[in-house]
Amino acid sequence: MSVAFPLPPGSTVGILGGGQLGRMLALAAARLGLDVVVLTPDEGSPASRVVKRTIVADYADPAALKALAEASDVITYEFENVPAAVVATLKDLGAHVAPGGEALRVAQDRVEEKTFLNAASAPTVAFAPIDQAADVETALAALGAPALLKTRREGYDGKGQTWVRQAGDGAAAFASVGEAPSILEARAAFTRELSVIAARGRDGELATYPVSENIHENGVLRTTIAPARVTPALQAEAERISREILTRLDYVGVMGIELFEIEDGRLLVNEIAPRVHNTGHWTQDGCEVDQFELHIRAVAGWPLGDTRPKVGVEMTNLLGDEANDWLAIAGEPNARLHLYGKGAPRPGRKMGHVNRVRPLEG
Amino acid sequence: MSVAFPLPPGSTVGILGGGQLGRMLALAAARLGLDVVVLTPDEGSPASRVVKRTIVADYADPAALKALAEASDVITYEFENVPAAVVATLKDLGAHVAPGGEALRVAQDRVEEKTFLNAASAPTVAFAPIDQAADVETALAALGAPALLKTRREGYDGKGQTWVRQAGDGAAAFASVGEAPSILEARAAFTRELSVIAARGRDGELATYPVSENIHENGVLRTTIAPARVTPALQAEAERISREILTRLDYVGVMGIELFEIEDGRLLVNEIAPRVHNTGHWTQDGCEVDQFELHIRAVAGWPLGDTRPKVGVEMTNLLGDEANDWLAIAGEPNARLHLYGKGAPRPGRKMGHVNRVRPLEG
Repeated sequence: MSVAFPLPPGSTVGILGGGQLGRMLALAAARLGLDVVVLTPDEGSPASRVVKRTIVADYADPAALKALAEASDVITYEFENVPAAVVATLKDLGAHVAPGGEALRVAQDRVEEKTFLNAASAPTVAFAPIDQAADVETALAALGAPALLKTRREGYDGKGQTWVRQAGDGAAAFASVGEAPSILEARAAFTRELSVIAARGRDGELATYPVSENIHENGVLRTTIAPARVTPALQAEAERISREILTRLDYVGVMGIELFEIEDGRLLVNEIAPRVHNTGHWTQDGCEVDQFELHIRAVAGWPLGDTRPKVGVEMTNLLGDEANDWLAIAGEPNARLHLYGKGAPRPGRKMGHVNRVRPLEG
Repeated sequence: MSVAFPLPPGSTVGILGGGQLGRMLALAAARLGLDVVVLTPDEGSPASRVVKRTIVADYADPAALKALAEASDVITYEFENVPAAVVATLKDLGAHVAPGGEALRVAQDRVEEKTFLNAASAPTVAFAPIDQAADVETALAALGAPALLKTRREGYDGKGQTWVRQAGDGAAAFASVGEAPSILEARAAFTRELSVIAARGRDGELATYPVSENIHENGVLRTTIAPARVTPALQAEAERISREILTRLDYVGVMGIELFEIEDGRLLVNEIAPRVHNTGHWTQDGCEVDQFELHIRAVAGWPLGDTRPKVGVEMTNLLGDEANDWLAIAGEPNARLHLYGKGAPRPGRKMGHVNRVRPLEG
């Protein structure tokens, strides 16, 4: 498969994953005249309703990967747990995969991730790898209690993690994460949870959106307020961190970078997601080029475009039954509703989001 | 088929027609969590790439209409030449079709259209029906030369029409439109071509966008500038005309109303299109709710939402080879590119458009 970037309109973008992120990527690709083919194990997925073709198969299915590679001029993904073997298979088939395998490797293992970040001058909380219960006690003594125990791999939205409150609790905590290889993280004395969405093009061009403030409930994102009220120095530091991370990974695409603002005003990186990110949904109605179009532009080799904010946005996730409020939201003058085409609401499931816009301050 | 409005997310909108208007309607429906099924005679149509299901068949195919009716909770269309028999068949199958058949009947025949408009207090140029060559001479004497001869049915983008410059040219002119039943229209001494995009909901709610100014070349829309520089009185008159037309037709959906601003400042209606309209594409980047979402909201029985402008827009159609400029346009900071997923450019074919935004004046 011989492909030249930038990909012209009429080219096909392959997407691994058929959830709401894949769906919104597909809608952005369509605006630019690009076709989309999705590979997902799920029948009737949100993305499958808005694309030219859906391949329903397991991600590890060799025939499905071959079909995806043959249909696609570039392949991207909507989730960070794409198995390394899948990317390797696609590359062996001659496919262009973006973002690249190094970003996935780093993002899939919390010890690798923090080790990489610190080497990239992107500060994090102190941490220690955990392989057995005794490691928890040793690390807790060094990091101070309480500390957060997380599995190295998998886990999201607060799953696969537990607080270790005091010495002696190590064995119980390690058992509660299934005695899987883990990481113990010092508590971040953060005052706010922030994030920055950044992108890098095939030619090394960088783009960042204004930092947003994020409010979580039970480990799940509830609200994003953007642009966050931050000093120019903090915005500049977020951009410096983005630049270090994306450049060192030779990254192509959009990345979500979760940040802690700590009491002394410094930024720590909590984690990175090598994909479009829930805390970037505000850009759909807040910026000229939103994170979905930005990602498509980046992987297709297009110029990244204008990421400046047009208005302020408060993004609220619609979880489970909250999506039943669609009619009231549709009637609000400054509310822009985004629904994902999922079936009946299940408790806690992300069914959609609403961006409420307001004039930019100052 | 028992359907209650407003249609909840997860419902299906059927669209007759698979061109760029159907495609952009489908993208708007997707944002609202609605599925789309398209009926089009064309394989690989622009809309078919972004919808859950495409039925490829002639519009008059009974089995295809049955399949569309069974799959859809409401059916709409992207072109005004939907045969009356198709709408009748769909209604017999229990389908909800919007906009309704009366709007199609009026819009499909230029004599019926102007007769309706004048009865609705929506002024037009003077006109006369033409059934034979001799009628042209009689009407020309009454209307004054030059006058514009158009077929009563079909014809768009300047096709099926000719100027009658002087007495005695009637036979040649009538021959040049194929001696089809026609209309002779007095020349409109217009200073500007304007349009207004309006919508009416199932509950009679009305919405209009600011009037836009439109520049045609060779009978094809080239550029829309919106909001147009018009007096509040002119905007109010455009809204009055919209209200009269949509209310009298008991209309549901978006309508494009083409206007002439004549030398004395009055507005005349040139023609109406019972669908989303090329002169409304600026709303995609100019207004909170764009004309495509507005149409979907109207036919689905949702509140119409906010049609106020956010920014000024200059919309330019990309015709034929002009779409080859996609890369340069993608790099312009204030340009938003929309491409239709058509194949290789053909001369004059609408391949996409670009909305260039600027701050609103005063």
